[in-house]
Amino acid sequence: MTRYMMEHPRTLVSLKFFGQRYDSAKSSISEDLSIIRHAFHTWGMGRLETIPGASGGAVLTPFYSKENAEAAIADLVKEVSDDSRLLQGGYVYLSDLIGRPDILRRVGRLIATQYVDKDVDVIMTVETKGIPIAQSVAMYLNKPFVIVRNSSHITEGPTVSVNYVSGSVKRIKKMELSRRTLSAGANVVVVDDFMKGGGTLNGMKSLIKEFDAHLVGMTVFAEGEVSGERLVDNCTSLIKVNAVDDRNKTISAQAGSFIDTVFGNKEN
Amino acid sequence: MTRYMMEHPRTLVSLKFFGQRYDSAKSSISEDLSIIRHAFHTWGMGRLETIPGASGGAVLTPFYSKENAEAAIADLVKEVSDDSRLLQGGYVYLSDLIGRPDILRRVGRLIATQYVDKDVDVIMTVETKGIPIAQSVAMYLNKPFVIVRNSSHITEGPTVSVNYVSGSVKRIKKMELSRRTLSAGANVVVVDDFMKGGGTLNGMKSLIKEFDAHLVGMTVFAEGEVSGERLVDNCTSLIKVNAVDDRNKTISAQAGSFIDTVFGNKEN
Repeated sequence: MTRYMMEHPRTLVSLKFFGQRYDSAKSSISEDLSIIRHAFHTWGMGRLETIPGASGGAVLTPFYSKENAEAAIADLVKEVSDDSRLLQGGYVYLSDLIGRPDILRRVGRLIATQYVDKDVDVIMTVETKGIPIAQSVAMYLNKPFVIVRNSSHITEGPTVSVNYVSGSVKRIKKMELSRRTLSAGANVVVVDDFMKGGGTLNGMKSLIKEFDAHLVGMTVFAEGEVSGERLVDNCTSLIKVNAVDDRNKTISAQAGSFIDTVFGNKEN
Repeated sequence: MTRYMMEHPRTLVSLKFFGQRYDSAKSSISEDLSIIRHAFHTWGMGRLETIPGASGGAVLTPFYSKENAEAAIADLVKEVSDDSRLLQGGYVYLSDLIGRPDILRRVGRLIATQYVDKDVDVIMTVETKGIPIAQSVAMYLNKPFVIVRNSSHITEGPTVSVNYVSGSVKRIKKMELSRRTLSAGANVVVVDDFMKGGGTLNGMKSLIKEFDAHLVGMTVFAEGEVSGERLVDNCTSLIKVNAVDDRNKTISAQAGSFIDTVFGNKEN
């Protein structure tokens, strides 16, 4: 049952289904569910709710407790604090991290924690390195994700495009999304791997407006330092990479705004 | 325990770890493990192995039985067999599928089934739509994935690039991979969303050679029809999309070579 619900998170599974599948009495199913509920609660890994009645059942919602979230972020900070990640021009090499299953599970569960009690229909990101982040979040929220592309691709059908200013290089670029991937009125969470000036995130904001959809929130894996003003001001970050010292080749990473944003007003 | 092992597949977890974590006697841990083993076996969702001795423990390896694999592929065929997916020029719209968690879980587990008994160090794909496929496989095999890029990106550091002929459009293109993402001698599984002429897959093959790495196998989500010869001949496909009739706007999808390739010689 744990396996089934973990592969179908945030989905109502009826007790009848479990009963037939495992050929067990309803009472022993209920007993097992309360063991699972207790385990998820004790370990701060999510909650299991049971809905009574004929159309009822059990729903497993994975997330992190504050304690687990802090530990997960501390791990990410440790991984990023490695001077050999420094590239020319103050950029930071993160590609290996967003290709590692253990990191992606942590990042997905963290960002899902932020939106666990919100109405979310779809996760949006821009190619390329935002995709693994979006997919991890989508897996935990059990919602689809859409990929905004940087240039026209013949295999996508009709698209909607917007121009945006890439903050860090001050250049006008274009991003587009296939017409049929996003419906009007959808509640959208925007995620990406890295934010500097916020131009790309701002572009996705415009795109959401073009589709008459609704922005629920924005979260990035890492936030870099920026000289001057940022184009978006309500984006959550898991970690902050600052004081990249190009001359001494050192990097300093720390926790981002995540814990404050997500657990700031909650009693957890 | 099921939750922990599902989030750490193909990882040896010591019984001592479980004992301390759950404050239980070794005998009751062993009993629970044998229930989990039985469940995974009965449902054809993988296997649980226990390794005896001081350095022993339990390893959960998720995969599909032949029966489950056939059902999963039949589901995919059904999803793709939708005439509204037909785009201009005989292309097929699949972007929504590779953004759906339920589809990605199935695809990941299917492809992982093929390589479950092979030595795999890393999954490779090319941007953009191959990424979700690679990530799903990576999650089930618990190995990292690397993304080959179509053009130079300043934030990746030194790269190695190869030229390749895109089979369907007969144009020479360039793909590249950051030097530090792949080590010499690594065992690589190549995956992608769609294969037509096989040019892109062939490019990744050359790239693997450039890195002195070893190709374990290639698997694509969908294989299209091609006029003339294909550039690769040992690529497995989950589904085949053929007889795309541009005039009557119909699509016909069917199972690909997967079942034969993976279960052809096995008694399952």
